[in-house]
Formats: sequence, structure tokens, C-alpha cells
Amino acid sequence: MGDTDVIVVGAGISGLTAAWRLAQAGQRVKVLEANARVGGRTLNHQFASGEVAEVGGQWVGPTQERILALLAELKLDTFPTWNQGDNLTLFGGRLKPYRGTIPKFAPHVLLDIGQAQWRLDRLARQIDLDDPSRHPKAPLWDSMSFAEWLRRQVKTEQARTVFDLASAAVFAAKPHDLSFLHVLFYIKSGTNLDTLLGVDKGAQQDRIVGGSQRISEELALRLDGAVQLAQPVRALKQGLDHVELITDQGSHRAKRVIFAVPPTLLLRITQEPLLPGWRDQLLQRLPQGAVIKCMAMYERPFWRERGLSGQATSEIGPVRLTFDNSVPGSSKGVLMGFIEGDEARHWSSCDEGERRAQVLQCFARYYGEQALQPLEYVDKCWADEPFARGCYAALFPPGVWGSGAARLRQPQGRVHFAGTETATRWMGYFDGAVQAAERAAAEVLALT
Amino acid sequence: MGDTDVIVVGAGISGLTAAWRLAQAGQRVKVLEANARVGGRTLNHQFASGEVAEVGGQWVGPTQERILALLAELKLDTFPTWNQGDNLTLFGGRLKPYRGTIPKFAPHVLLDIGQAQWRLDRLARQIDLDDPSRHPKAPLWDSMSFAEWLRRQVKTEQARTVFDLASAAVFAAKPHDLSFLHVLFYIKSGTNLDTLLGVDKGAQQDRIVGGSQRISEELALRLDGAVQLAQPVRALKQGLDHVELITDQGSHRAKRVIFAVPPTLLLRITQEPLLPGWRDQLLQRLPQGAVIKCMAMYERPFWRERGLSGQATSEIGPVRLTFDNSVPGSSKGVLMGFIEGDEARHWSSCDEGERRAQVLQCFARYYGEQALQPLEYVDKCWADEPFARGCYAALFPPGVWGSGAARLRQPQGRVHFAGTETATRWMGYFDGAVQAAERAAAEVLALT
Repeated sequence: MGDTDVIVVGAGISGLTAAWRLAQAGQRVKVLEANARVGGRTLNHQFASGEVAEVGGQWVGPTQERILALLAELKLDTFPTWNQGDNLTLFGGRLKPYRGTIPKFAPHVLLDIGQAQWRLDRLARQIDLDDPSRHPKAPLWDSMSFAEWLRRQVKTEQARTVFDLASAAVFAAKPHDLSFLHVLFYIKSGTNLDTLLGVDKGAQQDRIVGGSQRISEELALRLDGAVQLAQPVRALKQGLDHVELITDQGSHRAKRVIFAVPPTLLLRITQEPLLPGWRDQLLQRLPQGAVIKCMAMYERPFWRERGLSGQATSEIGPVRLTFDNSVPGSSKGVLMGFIEGDEARHWSSCDEGERRAQVLQCFARYYGEQALQPLEYVDKCWADEPFARGCYAALFPPGVWGSGAARLRQPQGRVHFAGTETATRWMGYFDGAVQAAERAAAEVLALT
Repeated sequence: MGDTDVIVVGAGISGLTAAWRLAQAGQRVKVLEANARVGGRTLNHQFASGEVAEVGGQWVGPTQERILALLAELKLDTFPTWNQGDNLTLFGGRLKPYRGTIPKFAPHVLLDIGQAQWRLDRLARQIDLDDPSRHPKAPLWDSMSFAEWLRRQVKTEQARTVFDLASAAVFAAKPHDLSFLHVLFYIKSGTNLDTLLGVDKGAQQDRIVGGSQRISEELALRLDGAVQLAQPVRALKQGLDHVELITDQGSHRAKRVIFAVPPTLLLRITQEPLLPGWRDQLLQRLPQGAVIKCMAMYERPFWRERGLSGQATSEIGPVRLTFDNSVPGSSKGVLMGFIEGDEARHWSSCDEGERRAQVLQCFARYYGEQALQPLEYVDKCWADEPFARGCYAALFPPGVWGSGAARLRQPQGRVHFAGTETATRWMGYFDGAVQAAERAAAEVLALT
């Protein structure tokens, strides 16, 4: 074993938190990270002028107690997402301003949206977060996609479009990609629909000073030399009293291992003994969402001068959702946009110049011609990242919870599982990453 | 390059046919097979008394012109599946005999089944097999699961149960696992629903003398030394004028490569340059079906003495579908049963003795106590097979065809794709494996 008790695979927030909790408890840990950097699905981008903004996951919000506690522990500060002025919607070819979460629509559309939201929240409250498949109606709800539920319960075309956008914003996926049971689970896991979708008091409320990748960087600093970069794990061998991990660089032994990687990547590690059939089948059915995150920097946040918040939702792509991602203390303005689902898959294979032009056209459609001339432009297609292969998180299609997906976090011999996909609270978010990490670390500590 | 023009990965029917067509055209080929045997998802089992029957794919039928031509070329004979006597159904706790494909039900249930089948066949005829997403209604049909369509169109509970069983029989999956568009594609790909489900004149009409694995064995014989077993491919590197494949045993170079493996296994091969994001995302969303195929051998086919065909369908599991899989020329009787979907995943992790006991209980429920005392019992869980990870074939959930799944067979540099999942006709069957192989071989030959 040499000097390692536990190897953690993956130096994102979940893996590093698990390693840090174990190190704090006196365990000798090693973290193997496939990339040449820490941060996982968080990634800071530094503009030429020095400002740092995020091309990966970026937000924290109220009720996310675990990540907020970790930020306090790491002495990282947050600042509010820019949320002043009018939001915009582009529906039916018309650009309209609005305030709050839901755009202005005709009263019957608003009623339709409101009723669906009320129903979703009410049903979500009944879900057992430890295992949603325990609900008496789980067989029906899990055999139904969110699209089917929307077709049954939502009467107006516009309301359905709003939920399509909400699905893209929350899951980076279409309603037909998602089990209705999973949507209910996710809503409760993230408190309620308003919290999931909101900025003030919601999951998009705050950002991290210096960018969210700093969480991982601070953890790695504290782990002082335990983190080894550019060590993609290709194979795992479990022995009677140890595990061995084979990377492109060599072999590593420890008493136990914690995987903190997206489910689809777990499939790609050769295992001895063989991954049990049920777990392989489960991982096969948990694909990642698809998102390209795009940012353009301008001399100043010119949209604010027109009373606009920088938040837009649109039924025209490829960018259907934007935010003001400017950096406090800088006079520059940053617009951020999401390309999601099929459009993300399409634009991932296209010419980068053409992608940039299309994204800026979208920004211009919402905020005017000035948006066509950024100082800088950057985007990140997470499906193209070799050690993410999609974002934000894994999708649960119909039938997966019902086939025993709660067993995803069940240890397997000397192997334990972290990563936000194994969380019960705030799955898919930083907070879930921390919860999963602390649960996996506790599992290991209970065995030593 | 040494002496190899083309490497084929996978020595199932598709890979070996591709290699054989290339060899016939004068190409120097090598076949790398991960298992220590050829045959892929076909596998013969020899009982102690010498009879051979199949624990993998086994049937061929009319309109499967390509596999029938290949069988003739290989001088392999077929024999009809045993199909004499009464079939049984077990619904609502009652065992009833029937003849033909559809069990006896009340007239309104039969009408319900008939109307749904008529609608499915009518819609399926409109599908473009080259790319189902071209149909004007594809966005709707692909955003809908087969379960949603059944809930809308099928009125009686019993008719829905029949389609649930049909889905298990055809896809080894539940209706909620499948895009409705994919179901329409699959029906047309396999001619029509009667052909997919039928024995006489259907996809289950004939078996191969000596067992279906003989197809691969005969092809391998003709390829004379080109097939290398126990060579799991872990990595692929594409150069400017060659490809290199890294297996556990060493490195292999050629001008081009044809992969003939299930989609999920392609994901697990490290690639340089990196697999494009769109293709990785596509492969992530193509999980394999789940099936355990079970066979029990008896002193004689005692069910025939009672006028029973050995075919049963049931709403009680784990075995919901049985066949008489006896071997001609032998006095012994063989019962075969399928465990599928969630039940296959569940029983794959359970104790093998308990699994056998449960399967025999099912056989006894249909055919009497005699079934509890077989001479021999064997089963095969395809999710547990390291180089299959499920059967019969990949499932297409909602949204996958619409996101460009037809590109699955699009070559990528020097890499070409065979395997039944890339077929347009009889996808998921031996015939599709041959079509895909001949298409991939032709692609390569056109480039040389």
C-alpha cells in the first residue's frame, strides 16, 4: 500500500472535498485527476484584461447549506449575480421585457404555467429523496417522460415552450429526455421549482469571487501535494485487501478508492472483477446533458444602460438563455449564453468561427448590434471535454429510477462512489457534490 | 502497416462478414476479438448428452434475405422452430391455450390489440429507413415513448400488457425505454409487426442446424488465421495514413478499421484524436437491452404429449416468454425462457441457484411439475458478458433519432462502423448484422 489509505479519482469539487474530509480525519489520501487541472466541471476563464469568469458551473444559492459551509471554511466570498433591470423574452418573433422568473404572457397562459408549477411542487414534496422509486405512483411517473406529463397537463403551446426552456436551463436536456419521476425528485432535491429557476433567493443567486474553480484550487492547496494531475485512470483491480488503479502514467495502490466522476466515465474504466451487470446497465442509461457555455466581453455592460438585466429567454436558438456575467470591480461587461441539448450536439461539431458568429447574432437579437463586436469571445462545449463528455450532470430517463438507480451510490467492495449524481439533496449542483463527498468519506471512515 | 489493410474489431456475425467480404475482394484483413471465442451475441451451448442449442441470438426468418444468402454461401442448413400444438397465456391468474400470435381475449380486447397493430403497421410504412427523423411527424413521434403512445391509443389494460410483452420479446426492454419513432422504424425495418412477432412466416421461424454460433465459426474458418482471439481493443490512434489499435496483448496497425461492436462498447475505447462530442453523446444515449436466456433440458419434450407447443406468454415473471428449443434428431426436450428488462438486471445480481429455481418454477407454472426436474439447466445473462453488456441490441430512447442517430454509421476518418445497430433493414437481427457488414466493407473497398 505504501503510504496511501484512500485514492480519490476526480479532482472536481466532490472528489477534492472527499479527499479533504479524509485527510482531516487523518487518512493518507491521493487524488488522481485525468485533466492537467483541478475543477472538474467548473472552469475559470481569464480574459486578456485580467477578469475571471466561469465557462463551467458557477452558481450557489440559498438552502445549499453544504457548499455554503465549505465556502466559509475555504474563506471564499460570494457576490450576487447581476439581477437589476428588465429581463427579455423572445416569443412569437416579439421581444418583450419582464421582471421576475416568468415572462409576461396572456392571463390564460400564465394560469396554465402557474397551475403546472403548483402541481409539480406539490407532487415533488411527496418524493423520498433517498429513493424516489418508493412512491406508490413511482411506476407510473417513472414510465412517463416529463414531455408526456407536459402534453397531458399543460394546455397552451406557450406554457409548454416555457417548460421546455426551464428543462434546458435546469437539466441541459429536453423534457423527453427525462423521467417525470426524476423531474419531481430533482425539484424536491433543489427545494422547489422557484428555487431551481430563480436568481434572487434561487439557485442562480450568487457567484464565487475569483470564479468557481477556486473552490477546487483552494481544496487542492490544502491537500498539499496529494493531487496528481494528468493521471487518467484506465483500469481498476480490486484485491482482497487493496485496490490498484492503472493510469496512463503508472499504477497506484491503496486500501480503498472513491470515484468522483460522471457516471458515463465510470463505464470506461476496465474493472477486475468485472463491473456487475446491473451496475453496467445502470451506467449505460445515465447519459450526460449537453451544453455549450458562451461568453463575450464588451467595453462596458451596455445593456444595463437600456435598463436591461442581461437575462433573456427565447424560442430562437442556438442561444436561448443569457445572463449578465460581468465581474465586479471591472468596468467591462460580460454576456453569457447557453446552447443546450441537440443544438449543443450540433454546434459542437461545427466550425468555431461560425459558432461564435451565431452566438453573437443571438446576443445582438436580444441586446442590439453592439453585441456583435465583443472585445473577446470564449465558449466551452462540455461534450467535447474528454473527462466530462457533457454537462451539467447525468440525465435520468424513464425507467432508470425504477430499475434501482438508488444503488448508484452503493459501495462495491473497496470502491465507493461520490460525485453530484450520487447526491440526494441538490443533485447536479455543487451542494450535491459536497453532500456526496461527505457521505462517501464517512463510509470509508466508518470502515477504518 | 506490415501485411494488414483492414482490421475488423469484433468477431460476431457482422465483423466476420465484413472481414470475409474484404478478404474475398483481395484485402489483407485481421479480426481482433475481445472474447476467447467468435460469435459475439450468438453462443452455442452443448448439453452433456451432445445436443447443441443457443443461449444467444438464434432465429432467422423470411424477408431476411442477406442472412439467408450468407447461410446458403456457408452451406449451413436451417430447421423450423417447433410450432405445433397450443400456445399458453397466463393472464389474470388463468392459464389458457391459444393458437397463433395473439392470445384469446374478450372481443373488445382483441379489437383494441388489432386496431393498435393496424395503426403501428400503417405508420411504420411511412418511415424512411435511412433516417426516420426525416418524417414530418418525427419531432412528435421521437419526443414520445412507446409507453406514451400505448397510453393514448390502447384502451384496455390487457391489450397494454400484450404490447408490454411484445416490447420485451422484440427489444428486451419496456415500452417506456423506447422512442415511438424507433418502434415504427424497427417495425418497418423488420417488415411488419406480424413478421417481428411471428414464428411461422416470422422472425422466429427457423433455427440453424448445429446452432447459430456456427455462422461465425464457418466465417472464421474461411478467414483462415486472420482472427485473433482474446484481444480486447482498449485504444485507437488514427494517424494520417494508418490506424493503430492497442489491445491487452499488443499493438496492431492497418490502413483502416471497421468496428463491429455494440455502441456502448465503442465508448469504452480510448481514442486519439478524441471521439467528437456529438458521437460520444450519441453513444451515451444508446444503452443495450437486458436479457437472461434460460434453457432446461428434459428426458423428453413432455409438454408436446399434452398438445402444447412450448410457447407461453405470461404477466408473471421472471420468465414471461418461453419456447420449445429442442434439437431435431434428439429425443430430449428443451424448454427455453426469457427474463428481460428490469427483471434481467435484478436476477443478474442474484444467487445462481435461486435464479435457476425461479426459472424452473415459471416453467412448472406453464407446463407442470415435471418441469422442476430437468436433466440440465443453463442460462446466460448478457448484461454480465464483458464484451456485450446487454442484448439483444441497443435501445433508441426518445430524442436520439432526432439528434442525428443516422450518423451512427457515418465513417470517422479511417474508422468505419458495422454491427447490427448501424443497419437500416432488420436492425437488431442477424440480417441487419450482415447488411451493416456489407455496407461497411463496400465503404472501405470504395476507398482503396
